[in-house]
Amino acid sequence: MNETIRELTERKSVRVYEDRAIEPEKEDLILEAALQAPTAGKMTLYSIIKVTDQEIKDRLAETCDHQPFIAKAPLVLVFVADYQKWYDLFCRHVEEVRHPGLGDLMLSIDDALIAAQNSVVAAQSMGIGSCYIGDIIENYEIHKELLGLPKYAVPAAMVVFGYPTEQQKERIKPARQRRECVVFENTYRRQSPEEFEKELTYSEGEKPDFKAWVNAFCNRKWNSDFSVEMSRSVKAMIEAWEKED
Amino acid sequence: MNETIRELTERKSVRVYEDRAIEPEKEDLILEAALQAPTAGKMTLYSIIKVTDQEIKDRLAETCDHQPFIAKAPLVLVFVADYQKWYDLFCRHVEEVRHPGLGDLMLSIDDALIAAQNSVVAAQSMGIGSCYIGDIIENYEIHKELLGLPKYAVPAAMVVFGYPTEQQKERIKPARQRRECVVFENTYRRQSPEEFEKELTYSEGEKPDFKAWVNAFCNRKWNSDFSVEMSRSVKAMIEAWEKED
Repeated sequence: MNETIRELTERKSVRVYEDRAIEPEKEDLILEAALQAPTAGKMTLYSIIKVTDQEIKDRLAETCDHQPFIAKAPLVLVFVADYQKWYDLFCRHVEEVRHPGLGDLMLSIDDALIAAQNSVVAAQSMGIGSCYIGDIIENYEIHKELLGLPKYAVPAAMVVFGYPTEQQKERIKPARQRRECVVFENTYRRQSPEEFEKELTYSEGEKPDFKAWVNAFCNRKWNSDFSVEMSRSVKAMIEAWEKED
Repeated sequence: MNETIRELTERKSVRVYEDRAIEPEKEDLILEAALQAPTAGKMTLYSIIKVTDQEIKDRLAETCDHQPFIAKAPLVLVFVADYQKWYDLFCRHVEEVRHPGLGDLMLSIDDALIAAQNSVVAAQSMGIGSCYIGDIIENYEIHKELLGLPKYAVPAAMVVFGYPTEQQKERIKPARQRRECVVFENTYRRQSPEEFEKELTYSEGEKPDFKAWVNAFCNRKWNSDFSVEMSRSVKAMIEAWEKED
């Protein structure tokens, strides 16, 4: 296993940071790694908003499912799926330009996530921890206003960075699901709930009362307020994207 | 710049491969790097379909915008946004389970892309080239049937891998857009078409007739058949996801 693959496999989320800034030259490398990521049609269908304003960080810590550590993170990057610049350019120069569609939205979201993961891996390789904040896709209307986003630029991912505390460094990376449960050949293999339950003992450990565990987990992850809000928000975002001007 | 960041910044798409297989132990590392990627709520909201059946590869080479090199790639991975396994488990054990929403779809697409990029970086670090095939999000109905996907598992990304030919190794990585055009502080900065035009000379080179270039580019990337199909397909995929059973 080479150095890069070791970084890819060892990387775990870090939510508690030392109280020290990330050096400008390291921040540069994090951004450069993102900017050099693969991008559909070489179009760079994303923008990165570096949030340094403490008031905006405080607000994001609230609007992204009330997670105070966001406000304390030394580096906060919002990856925005962005077709605005190209669409504006097309409209300026081309006579007949079709309205942006959901394929364009999806392709730009893909671009944003690919760039985000490069930033995460670059940070990891310099001993800098990171955490994805999926909650940035909640509260679409609030985030649009907070970050000054035009119609065809929408939040896709947020990553917060900082040096891990000793306790975080020592934290064991949570086990992932096994390959048998995730990788299939040629066609999808639908697992029965019983089979998936058995698989979960590998990543989640034995659960004496599995039904109770699933109920608690489902209430925390699926039936929860943040999860319901996320689906409302993404629907609103998609409807706004599709709406003819 | 450390080894990992060098790999992240040097990686470029490779579409022509040497006629040799990827060693099983290297394929293992590519998959392992993907499986160790960050995942929302540690839920592994994706599956990976390794396509080895030549007939399916041939078909994908057609349905993904007629790109014959897909059929010749030694390794083809489809990253599927997958909430099916968890939803089935919730329905089996929890009395009241809300219907999957668009936030769940988006979160699982994010997961799939993050894992995909880990596989790309792992491959790069072993001298193995790769290319994203965004066209996998076209032809939703065909790909659903071809890969045997249930309702809550949808194609998010495809990556094809292989050893680059000498010519591919020597190909210069296309320039990316400059940081000034992509990274903003605190709020989005909307660029005028004139400003973006100027920026594009850095990544695209000087264009003596810029208007003609934009028209040709727009016709190839935006007003083209594959692009229109992509938006139709993603809309169909979203509608299918949302439809109550």
